[in-house]
Amino acid sequence: MNADLRILVVEPNPERVRDIVDALREAGWSDVKALLQMSELNQTVREFSPDIVLIDLTNPDRDTLEHISHATETAKRAVALFVDQTDENLTQAALNAGVSAYVVDGLQMDRIKPVLQTAIARFKMMRQFHFELNAAKQALEDRKTIDRAKGILMRQRGMSEDDAYKLLRTTAMRQNRKVIDVAQALVTAADLLS
Amino acid sequence: MNADLRILVVEPNPERVRDIVDALREAGWSDVKALLQMSELNQTVREFSPDIVLIDLTNPDRDTLEHISHATETAKRAVALFVDQTDENLTQAALNAGVSAYVVDGLQMDRIKPVLQTAIARFKMMRQFHFELNAAKQALEDRKTIDRAKGILMRQRGMSEDDAYKLLRTTAMRQNRKVIDVAQALVTAADLLS
Repeated sequence: MNADLRILVVEPNPERVRDIVDALREAGWSDVKALLQMSELNQTVREFSPDIVLIDLTNPDRDTLEHISHATETAKRAVALFVDQTDENLTQAALNAGVSAYVVDGLQMDRIKPVLQTAIARFKMMRQFHFELNAAKQALEDRKTIDRAKGILMRQRGMSEDDAYKLLRTTAMRQNRKVIDVAQALVTAADLLS
Repeated sequence: MNADLRILVVEPNPERVRDIVDALREAGWSDVKALLQMSELNQTVREFSPDIVLIDLTNPDRDTLEHISHATETAKRAVALFVDQTDENLTQAALNAGVSAYVVDGLQMDRIKPVLQTAIARFKMMRQFHFELNAAKQALEDRKTIDRAKGILMRQRGMSEDDAYKLLRTTAMRQNRKVIDVAQALVTAADLLS
């Protein structure tokens, strides 16, 4: 797991940055970049493209959480957020924003490794979850589109439902495309021509 | 958040149990039950019905994780698991089993409160996620059932798709039921009669 893990550390205190980078190196991670200014987060994430972003924050607020969520692209990489203080609403907001680890009052150097490993495992689980949710939503949308395409064929060519589906399928096979793509083309064309 | 939170603590060491219960009380939680034997977890969860289960484990293994996931019914309540050692696979297995907080080498009394609060926030987020995923899957299944019911009417009564759906809908309204229930009844009947 340690191999090739690229880590961005955001920490305003230069001394603490050094401690964190040392702790990460001791944990076997050397591909590390440190950032003192939260304002450069956006650009640094884009340039460095880390696997995980470790952020040390004294007092989080909603605006900062939103900025972090947006800048780190929480759907693409794990984010471990260390804060000194929080409340129930901020905790929930941080987790909903996609933070993989939200650690209150606990940036201890000897626990960085297990915390980051858990954050990455959590991130993988959430990514799988989002994938399943999107797949389920897409399956429903695809079915709606195919139903609309079948309806168009049934109405315009007086076909039965079965025959309409068979025509979509044979057209897809002949054109080396997916049924959903042929159905989408038909729905788009019908919208244009009606 | 603290009000009315019912906590079950599973910890084999009686002295440590006392420390944990004291720390919980200091955090404002007094509705606490302690359990020394992991083997009684199943029954105790059923009887006490806690909001969150805090488990202190020296060495987790897959069997124990499965037992915990099953006994605590992780879909119904938050579980905070404290372990001394882990590896990448066990961490992933614990999170996939629904554990809300997986804390390695870190059961410190002064951090119990934020850890449990984060676990509960995580649990709420995951519950919402499961809810959305199930809703999306159910919507697809319902649509398939309604399509099958429409197909039966189109075939057996020579109706158009539109008329078939209208018949399902007016029947549902007349019987004060949902369209999906009427469709399901029709599909079931057709399976029985064919």
